[in-house]
Amino acid sequence: MTRAPQVVVIGDGRASRPTARLAEQIGAHVAQLGATLITGGRGGVMAAASRGARRAGGSVIGIVPSTALAEGNRWCSVVIPTGLGHARNVVTALAGDVVVAIGGGAGTLSEIAFAWIHGRPIIVVKGRGGWADALTRRGVDARRSSTITAVADAAGCAAALWTLLRRVTKA
Amino acid sequence: MTRAPQVVVIGDGRASRPTARLAEQIGAHVAQLGATLITGGRGGVMAAASRGARRAGGSVIGIVPSTALAEGNRWCSVVIPTGLGHARNVVTALAGDVVVAIGGGAGTLSEIAFAWIHGRPIIVVKGRGGWADALTRRGVDARRSSTITAVADAAGCAAALWTLLRRVTKA
Amino acid sequence: MTRAPQVVVIGDGRASRPTARLAEQIGAHVAQLGATLITGGRGGVMAAASRGARRAGGSVIGIVPSTALAEGNRWCSVVIPTGLGHARNVVTALAGDVVVAIGGGAGTLSEIAFAWIHGRPIIVVKGRGGWADALTRRGVDARRSSTITAVADAAGCAAALWTLLRRVTKA
Amino acid sequence: MTRAPQVVVIGDGRASRPTARLAEQIGAHVAQLGATLITGGRGGVMAAASRGARRAGGSVIGIVPSTALAEGNRWCSVVIPTGLGHARNVVTALAGDVVVAIGGGAGTLSEIAFAWIHGRPIIVVKGRGGWADALTRRGVDARRSSTITAVADAAGCAAALWTLLRRVTKA
Repeated sequence: MTRAPQVVVIGDGRASRPTARLAEQIGAHVAQLGATLITGGRGGVMAAASRGARRAGGSVIGIVPSTALAEGNRWCSVVIPTGLGHARNVVTALAGDVVVAIGGGAGTLSEIAFAWIHGRPIIVVKGRGGWADALTRRGVDARRSSTITAVADAAGCAAALWTLLRRVTKA
Repeated sequence: MTRAPQVVVIGDGRASRPTARLAEQIGAHVAQLGATLITGGRGGVMAAASRGARRAGGSVIGIVPSTALAEGNRWCSVVIPTGLGHARNVVTALAGDVVVAIGGGAGTLSEIAFAWIHGRPIIVVKGRGGWADALTRRGVDARRSSTITAVADAAGCAAALWTLLRRVTKA
Repeated sequence: MTRAPQVVVIGDGRASRPTARLAEQIGAHVAQLGATLITGGRGGVMAAASRGARRAGGSVIGIVPSTALAEGNRWCSVVIPTGLGHARNVVTALAGDVVVAIGGGAGTLSEIAFAWIHGRPIIVVKGRGGWADALTRRGVDARRSSTITAVADAAGCAAALWTLLRRVTKA
Repeated sequence: MTRAPQVVVIGDGRASRPTARLAEQIGAHVAQLGATLITGGRGGVMAAASRGARRAGGSVIGIVPSTALAEGNRWCSVVIPTGLGHARNVVTALAGDVVVAIGGGAGTLSEIAFAWIHGRPIIVVKGRGGWADALTRRGVDARRSSTITAVADAAGCAAALWTLLRRVTKA
């Protein structure tokens, strides 16, 4: 048996309406690609992407900071409470065959750094501010184990996911 | 939307044939109860329970110590690499509405301790040796936030799961 | 330059007066042996051992569960806030060239399990109840990377520390 | 009794000669201020700062990723092996009353993000490249619990440390 590809979506715990709509569309694309969506399990970008994936019939895992199963948002199919506080960001970043960043503050930045260190391919969706907007193709540092792909919208993200997941699951 | 109940099965990374058969039956029961099975993602009891759940049509999450998605056994629907080494045992223990222990050495013992501390109800399946056999109804220490239910076989485990999950998901 | 040997003392966050006196004596012995004392940084056995070590002129490191430097008890020379909750027990167990257990509930039990898994020699001080009393020379499981030495009092602990630290620091 | 102030120095595991000299001077200043130096315990900036502090008579704690006490560089007075891999970066960031960043790649970036999230004041030493150079007074995101102070050299860092530590230890 094989597991489905895993896509992590990271971003702010609070999101403007256009950012939430974008995250929801990306979540739906993740489900339509047959991938499992994984998020940090909280609000904002995380909840919006999760809603999109669940409504499109997908599975959603929320990896939350506290010890409480109830901390996951209502769109989670499964909640993984870590009890690690912000150190759960390492676990979130590691959970993806690909990691998608939308906007994002310091928490998202730490997740991008960990995805980069651990060689997880990163897609940054431009135009929503935050660290996802600030990063360029040059990457986070001189390591070359990961890549950063910049996309403009949900459709671009779906196309990049399709390409990256095909490469990852073949490897 | 609601998440399915979550059952963690913990035990040795190596298992005798009878212990593996028991774990596989319990995994199948977990799936038949409509619950998600969560394990430490490796061999022995973990792999056997996962095989049972997948073959019964269930979902299986493996929470593994290393940073590698490939560390999960082949029965995982989703792999969560933590990069935390044995500290991932906290995350495994927290992931269950109920935790089932079969046999078990020091790693399993640490997971039982964390389940106890965090108030997760514990089922110990007797007769397979290890720490699951050594624990009694008196529990791990003077805390009373968790409970230990001893069962004799897979059918007893299924009955106990049915009772405990009904209580947990109502709460 | 070389670091001093490191001794971890683990045990309950609340301690009876005789247990606290025992822990304090052991802390003093740790300091007199020229070793750094490391604890979980909280009350009970941890605070008592720390008081003993500081009063004997030693250094004390407290590795605490929360993110707050202020969580360490007043006898800490250095506080390491982990933000990991009970997962900090792995870090505490790993910090010792030798680990000394006095009494202890589920948290102490998890630390003993991790010390055992990671090959840290363990001294259990008998007669104070808890898991330190329940463990025998046979150890935690079939692994043979660690050892358990049972002692009856603070003087016995000092003698065992002297022997074990000499062996460890030579290796 | 009171603990000494704690200063974390973060930066690359490899360092050019001028960067190492800068780190060594800063380590010496930390010791001369009566503070404990804490680093990630490895090479480059971490080892250079540690050498500076030890030679100036200070105490040095190295918080390392692996489970091995031997992983700490030779200037550590105490080694804390976490077994957490890169998740140890959270622990390192939390350990400082003040965090000083010199140069730095993705690992340092994650530590800056965690220091920011947890309200630890950050000093960035300019002119050595990496993320410490890229950050500005505006900070990491919209949170205002931490501050970033930019300094040009070791003397500037010592002055900023003096001011920040006075404020922190009074609070």
